[in-house]
This record gives sequence, structure tokens and C-alpha cells, in this order.
Amino acid sequence: MIAEIISIGTELLLGQIVDTNAAYLSQQLSHLGISVYHRTTVGDNLERAVATVQQAHARADFVFLIGGLGPTMDDLTREIIAEVMEAPLQQDADAARQLEEHFSRRGYKMVESNYRQALVPTGGRPLPNANGTAPGVLIEKNGKAMIALPGPPNEFIPMFETQVVPYLELRIEGQRQVIRSRTLRIMGVGESSLEEMVKDLMQSANPSVAPYAKVGEVHLRVTAKAGSEAEADSLIAERTDQLYARLGTHIYGENETTLEAAVVTLLREKGLTVATAESCTGGLLSGRITSIPGSSEVFHTGLVTYANEAKINLLQIPRAVIAGVGAVSPEVAQAMAERVRELARADFGIGITGIAGPGGGTPEKPVGLVYIGLATKAGVSHSKNLYSGIRADVRYRATQTALEMLRQALRANG
Amino acid sequence: MIAEIISIGTELLLGQIVDTNAAYLSQQLSHLGISVYHRTTVGDNLERAVATVQQAHARADFVFLIGGLGPTMDDLTREIIAEVMEAPLQQDADAARQLEEHFSRRGYKMVESNYRQALVPTGGRPLPNANGTAPGVLIEKNGKAMIALPGPPNEFIPMFETQVVPYLELRIEGQRQVIRSRTLRIMGVGESSLEEMVKDLMQSANPSVAPYAKVGEVHLRVTAKAGSEAEADSLIAERTDQLYARLGTHIYGENETTLEAAVVTLLREKGLTVATAESCTGGLLSGRITSIPGSSEVFHTGLVTYANEAKINLLQIPRAVIAGVGAVSPEVAQAMAERVRELARADFGIGITGIAGPGGGTPEKPVGLVYIGLATKAGVSHSKNLYSGIRADVRYRATQTALEMLRQALRANG
Repeated sequence: MIAEIISIGTELLLGQIVDTNAAYLSQQLSHLGISVYHRTTVGDNLERAVATVQQAHARADFVFLIGGLGPTMDDLTREIIAEVMEAPLQQDADAARQLEEHFSRRGYKMVESNYRQALVPTGGRPLPNANGTAPGVLIEKNGKAMIALPGPPNEFIPMFETQVVPYLELRIEGQRQVIRSRTLRIMGVGESSLEEMVKDLMQSANPSVAPYAKVGEVHLRVTAKAGSEAEADSLIAERTDQLYARLGTHIYGENETTLEAAVVTLLREKGLTVATAESCTGGLLSGRITSIPGSSEVFHTGLVTYANEAKINLLQIPRAVIAGVGAVSPEVAQAMAERVRELARADFGIGITGIAGPGGGTPEKPVGLVYIGLATKAGVSHSKNLYSGIRADVRYRATQTALEMLRQALRANG
Repeated sequence: MIAEIISIGTELLLGQIVDTNAAYLSQQLSHLGISVYHRTTVGDNLERAVATVQQAHARADFVFLIGGLGPTMDDLTREIIAEVMEAPLQQDADAARQLEEHFSRRGYKMVESNYRQALVPTGGRPLPNANGTAPGVLIEKNGKAMIALPGPPNEFIPMFETQVVPYLELRIEGQRQVIRSRTLRIMGVGESSLEEMVKDLMQSANPSVAPYAKVGEVHLRVTAKAGSEAEADSLIAERTDQLYARLGTHIYGENETTLEAAVVTLLREKGLTVATAESCTGGLLSGRITSIPGSSEVFHTGLVTYANEAKINLLQIPRAVIAGVGAVSPEVAQAMAERVRELARADFGIGITGIAGPGGGTPEKPVGLVYIGLATKAGVSHSKNLYSGIRADVRYRATQTALEMLRQALRANG
């Protein structure tokens, strides 16, 4: 079955917000085995929106409309559906009552324009909104459906998952063609070397293997199409086995597993802890580690020693060392790692010091230069890195390298 | 003039990546006064892509194609342009030479498929790519243009800015209609209360005023259309003056000014410093502060006391206090703020302790409960917050509240 996604909102066409809903919905539909061939964005203009929705309705089984369900005159989605489906709007008693309740619970007075949100095209039904005022709309006609969902992601996602997915599953039962995919996440190999290593496996169409370059890592996505989930999964498993054989420990995780999640899992499995001392990354490394639920088992202490005085006072790094070799140096990175490891009584210590830019660079120590120290019970080591990109990229890449150094140390520590 | 944007790539339709390029391009075109009425995404399918591009070409002056310029057989953008513009592909000598240089500089051997990237539709010209192998394409016919740009943002953005913007400026000279907008960023007022406060100003179409709810803040965008930038700006200025009069210090910044940037600016202006002690936010607050260039003037020290032991050892919070009232308590938040302020000899100290979830909640202390302490030379205060949302939302909202508490203290500290 074929779906088409139409995002409605002038703010999208002005580029004021990025359309993450459309990406999310695409992903969900692909999991359900529903193909999406076109995705369109139109503004809050009735004529153009109606023409776009008409075209989509003609070529797809399901048309999803995202946004434009608010109470104001700019919110045209209800009118668009009414026109394309030839289903005049009428007020839905249940929807009106839910709106009244929503407002009275919050102690707000409901104004006349809010009742616009209770309008539903004849023959359609409102989809209750647990997290906002805008009900969704679902309407079927001649075997084709149109589904309108509110734009705010915290309303859109729950409504889709709890109300639309069950509907779609019923509709596609029996004629399901499944698309499944699995992503391998890779550190320490550039995109071109990676392609060289697996080029022959990228030739086949089913399963397909496609590389995606990310900041500081590369992903390989293996996608298969088949009559059942089991069949698709077995096509994928065969191909990923080959990829694991070639790429080995460069693969740090799969699918949504972030590098910090992989590292926290390894630490938990081994019952080990890490402590961090950060300068140029300013807490981003500890922020990434603690983004993982359960990280409190493996991370207790982090220091952000952004100024030299902080390095001297909190970490007892000798003033003379900083004066001699500078704060951005292998010596200081290693000392930060060792001292925070001791201070926190942790198994691993990480120290990061560098020049994130845009200012502060010199010919000897340019913007992007970052030293990362790693202290273990066996001793201390460091890496010297020269990252390209803006301040945010340099900082993020430094946390990537630090996590990867820790991961490799954990793997070595059988 | 009218432009249309078409993003090409099955990975987009599968929802594997979010299309930030299309949003960026929309924004840039709007700044140039070029209207975008439709934006479409299609997969790597020649027939469907050609039909989509044909439709766009018929209704727009400029058609932008993003992606599909790589070396593989999946990369169809060159073929699509050739077909729609009736301009057969031929190898461009300059583009081929640049590719050869690119590969030899990196010590790579250029393989046959790479020469696909040197193909250009007859009558078009390649746009050199400073950051990758894929040249862009620009072709004009009968007063209409088609412009193809590579998908990776670090190639796409520089190519657009250095090569396409000058071309567009030449084309639109003399018939420019400018759309300008200015965004006011607001803390401490919910979206509905905000609408209530400025409802009458939201009625007019030019300038228009539109609210956007973000995580932990709300934005108001004022947009005006006029014959010149000056004219548009003066329409906007008149409206924003009214908004400032009503919303006062709730407006913390404009356009791309983040809350952390506003706070760092205020600290720098007043020559004051802040230190942080974070538990549930794990370094995200210091990470946000240090994301701002120049923050080293106002931020020297941060502590991530994730475990109770770290709170006791690093911050000397009495073990008995934690045992008595718990680590998630107003007492501990205030003590963290006071102790880190003293330890770092800073003007302000912030302490954050809470339950980010998904686990760890109790009926008395549910997930989302976060206490934030703020220590100043005048004493210490705290806020009690109950945030909704997933772990990442709770953590982010806590950093929003902390920054806003600091901002209000800085504003009070004339």
C-alpha cells in the first residue's frame, strides 16, 4: 500500500522550523511496510494546498496531513479535507465536549474560535488529543483514507502511535509487504575506506547496503523487502554477518544505539566506572554519558575545569606545567585524566583540553586541536586530534574520540 | 519570483535522516525575497523523480534539487535534469580534472564510477565543490533555472552560499520583493497566555505575528513583505516595539540568540561569573554555557556530582542532610549552589538535582521533579519544578529554568 505525507504550514516553507514529523512518520510507515513515494510541504494557502492534497489522494491509499489543525483562521487542514473529500464540516459533539473539558481543567475560558477545532468533515471521525487541544481527523471514502494530525511533535507522535497505527495495521493485514532495515554504527573508519572494504556487498538491491556519513562516525544501513518480517530479517542477518566479519570491532552498535549507550553498557557489564575532567567540551562528555538511563552505576563524578585556575585548584595540576607547556598539551590532558581518576576513585579517567574556536587559535595550536587523555589502572595515554568544523563540531567530535578511546580500552580489558 | 525545492533520496522517504537542508534553503530563499510554495521529497526512482521535477519546473522560476549527485548508480539527479531540460549529459573537462585532483591529493585512486560526477547536462555548468567530490549543476533554459546541490550539509551550504546566492541576486535584481522576519524569544509565559496578551497584534497580515511553542520557551515571529529591506524592517520595528512594551523582560533575545547566549552576554556586560553543580543534568548546563564563544570570561568551573558520594566529597554536603531529606530536595539544591559558588569563587552558583527518569521516581518524588538552587552574594534561593516529557526533555527543561533564574537575577542586579 502507498502513503503520501503532506506537511502544511507557511513556517515550514519559510524554513523557520525543521520538519522532523515527516521524517518520523516516514520511518513508522516504512516499518509497517507501507511505501512512501512522495512527501510534500505546502503553506497555509487553501487553493495550493487543496491542489496538492488532491494529487496525493489520487495516487495514494493513505494521505497524511500534518499541521494546520489549530484554532486560528490560518489553520486550514479541516477545510482542505472537506473540499478534497467533498465532506462538509460539521461540529462534533464529543470533540466539542473534550475541548470544553480541556479548557475548564486548566481554568481557561474557551473562546469562540476554539470551537473551530471541533469541526469534523462529514463521515469522518475526530481523533482525541491527549496532549493538546487539536483533535486529529480520520476519514475514509472509496477505500482511501485521509488522516490529519496536529503539528506539535508531543501531540503528533502519541496520537499516531496510539490511534493511527492500530487502524493502519487493520487496513494492511493480509497484504503486507514488509520493509525492514538494520543500521550498523561504525567508528574509526572513514566513509571512503569503508566503501572500499564492503563495496561488493553494496551491489545487491535486496538486501541493500547504504553508507551514511555522520559527524565523527559512519552508519551502514542494510534494508530488505520481503513477504514477512522473518523473511526480511533473515536476508538482513545474512548480510550483517558478512559485515561484522569484515569490520569487527569498528562496529560499536546497531540502530538507535549511540556511542555513549555502547560505552555505558560495556562499563555496566564489566562493573567499572569512569570520571571526566573537561575543558573545551565544557561538560558535553559527562552530559552524553548521563543521557543514558542507568549511567549512575558507572559515572559518579565529572569536573568542568574550564579556566586554568580550576585545573590548578580542583585537579592540582602544577601551575608550572600549565605555564610551561600550556593548558592545551598532552601533559595537561594526561594529568587531567589521572587526577580525576584518583579524585573520583574511578577505574577510568578522561581529560579533554583543546581549542574549540572560533577564537584562541595560534599557528602552533590552531582551532580544532584537542588533546584527550585516558587514565587506566595500567597507566595513562593520550590522543592528539585536529578536528575541522565549527565550534560545536569540534566539541562534539572531541566527545566522540574520548568515548571511542574508552570503548577500545574496555574491549581490550577483557 | 518563485522557487521550488525537491529533495531526492530514498533515505529521506524511509525517514532515516531529517531533511535539514530543505529548511535551510527555504530560509535563505525567503531572505532573498523568493517565494517557496511547494517543497517535495522523492526517492531514487527515475520515473517518479522526473515527473515531480517536471511539475515543479512548470510552476516555478527556480527549481532546486538537493542530493543524488554521488558517484553510484542510485544517484540520479544528473539524469533527471537531462531528461526534464532535454539536455543530454556530457563529461565536463574541468569537473573531471577537479575530481582527479581531489582524489590524488588524498592519495586515492579514482575509479571509473567517479567520472559519473563529472557529467553535466548540455548547456549547464558544474558548480565546484570545495568540500567533497560531487559538483553541483546549474542550467538555464527559457528564463527558468534548475540548480542541483549535493546532500551533505557541509558541502551543500558552502556551495549555496558562495555560488548560488550571487547568481540568484543577479537574477532577482530589480524585481525584488523582500520578505523579512524577526523572532522574539520568550521565557516564563505559556503559549496560550502569550496569545491572550498579544492577540490583537496577531490579526494583521503584514506584518504578521505568529507564535511557536518550543521546549521550555515560546517564540513570536514577526514577518513583513515589502518592496525594500528598509520598508520591511520598519514595518517589523513598529510591531516589535509594541510587543516589547507588553512583554518586557519576558523577551530574552531575538532571532538566533539562545538563552545561554543571552545569559553569557549579561554576565560579560556586568563582569560577573557563574559556577555550576549538576546532578541530573550531568553537565548539560555547563555544556550549554560553554557552547558560547567567549564564555571562558564568565565560566571557570563546573562540577558534575552525579553520585551522592560526589556531592559529599566534592561539595562537602553533609552526609546527614542527604540521608535526612534525600539528594533530590530543596536543601541539597541550595547547598550545591552555595558550595560550588564558594569553591569556584564565583558570583553566582547554580545547583541542580532531580529525577530525570525513566526510572527512579516515587509517589513523593516523581520522575520530572527537579530542584534548582541559585546562590548569589545576597543569599540562596531555589525553584521546585515538575517537568513532563522524556528524560532528555526533563534534563533540557531543567537547564532552561536554571538559565532563566540566573537571567532574572542578573537583570535584578542592575
